[in-house]
Amino acid sequence: MAQQDRAIRTRRVILEAAASVFDEQGYDRATIAEVLERAGVTKGALYFHFASKEQLALAVIEEQVVDIAVEPQTIKLQEFVDSGQVLAFRLRSDPIQRGAARLAVEQGSNHLDRKQSMLSWTRFVEGLLNDARSRGEILESVVVGETAELFVGAFAGLQMMSQALTNRADLSRRLTVFFEHTLPSIAVPAILAKLNLDSERGAQLNAALQAKTVAKAAAGADAEVDVVTG
Amino acid sequence: MAQQDRAIRTRRVILEAAASVFDEQGYDRATIAEVLERAGVTKGALYFHFASKEQLALAVIEEQVVDIAVEPQTIKLQEFVDSGQVLAFRLRSDPIQRGAARLAVEQGSNHLDRKQSMLSWTRFVEGLLNDARSRGEILESVVVGETAELFVGAFAGLQMMSQALTNRADLSRRLTVFFEHTLPSIAVPAILAKLNLDSERGAQLNAALQAKTVAKAAAGADAEVDVVTG
Repeated sequence: MAQQDRAIRTRRVILEAAASVFDEQGYDRATIAEVLERAGVTKGALYFHFASKEQLALAVIEEQVVDIAVEPQTIKLQEFVDSGQVLAFRLRSDPIQRGAARLAVEQGSNHLDRKQSMLSWTRFVEGLLNDARSRGEILESVVVGETAELFVGAFAGLQMMSQALTNRADLSRRLTVFFEHTLPSIAVPAILAKLNLDSERGAQLNAALQAKTVAKAAAGADAEVDVVTG
Repeated sequence: MAQQDRAIRTRRVILEAAASVFDEQGYDRATIAEVLERAGVTKGALYFHFASKEQLALAVIEEQVVDIAVEPQTIKLQEFVDSGQVLAFRLRSDPIQRGAARLAVEQGSNHLDRKQSMLSWTRFVEGLLNDARSRGEILESVVVGETAELFVGAFAGLQMMSQALTNRADLSRRLTVFFEHTLPSIAVPAILAKLNLDSERGAQLNAALQAKTVAKAAAGADAEVDVVTG
């Protein structure tokens, strides 16, 4: 493995360990010592990538948004729905998503700027909705910024409620209910009729995305072997 | 003042003090000592009403729902909207509302059953929506339980986002955006056209409710004077 790849992989291991500690303990009670133990790396390796607990937390939040890009679709509003459903599915098991979610909802007990997480999600959703608008998929009356912020805020609350009531087992269904209530006020009728709001979609899309990542990694490994042996 | 009235008033003073400590410190860092100091009551008085910090927190959460009943309206869906807008307004300054909100969103760092808060709000909203249904105000397609839980979950997230971004100054507006997006999927058209979703409504209704409470208290005090002097 090239040195750079190793560094990227170590960084990821540390981030996942940190995210799971944040998820279980919250920011205040999380310690670097516990992150080191879970990640199985040295103090030196951790501090090479992250200067402090705060930096770790910010990196977990940042990684979350990067992680959620779904496959491009003919209908952009379907991508909007799909991103939400993949995120809902991943919040059930992905340590980065779970850790970032807890960091984003904790109030004032730390110096983290919770705004950053909400603003970067809002920008992500605005991007999708603006694409949808340029293709004529959404109604004239929609104010993209308002709809994007509604989605981000409501999603934060729905995942919190779902976590309290069912450890997020019913989050996909709750998200479908949100889309059923709001999309008639967002999509033009011809697009609305074509959208797939099925709550099982998140699991299916996630499996397809993971298969693709594995295939890509395998192709990369082959290429690396070629370089080493070639 | 009758002894019973005094006890009710002391209980309320303690609850408000506890709620403001929970709002600022969170459950874990809140102490009975700080509640006593803010309330200006003795340990004996506090323990007469509440056996523990947990009991205090549960009482704050319970008080929140009781506190929000608005004036009856001809259109029940308007009561649904109004309850949300009054709550949104009060979250800006009412210690009980703020304390209860923080207790409801904190994850796992305490043994409080967060479900109770969400379930009692859901029952409250279901009651309003069932009344609306019996008057023919809502569409056939609405599943009352789903819509009520969507409202409670989304509201929790919107208030959290508003708190992080503007210390809840824009919460009323965010709630109006939520209603604009969802009510076309809930209300029959003739009712939809009559609903007032104005985001200033919360402040106006709250002022009217407070004036009524003051008038009632004054009438009560007069009655008491009559009893004492009569």
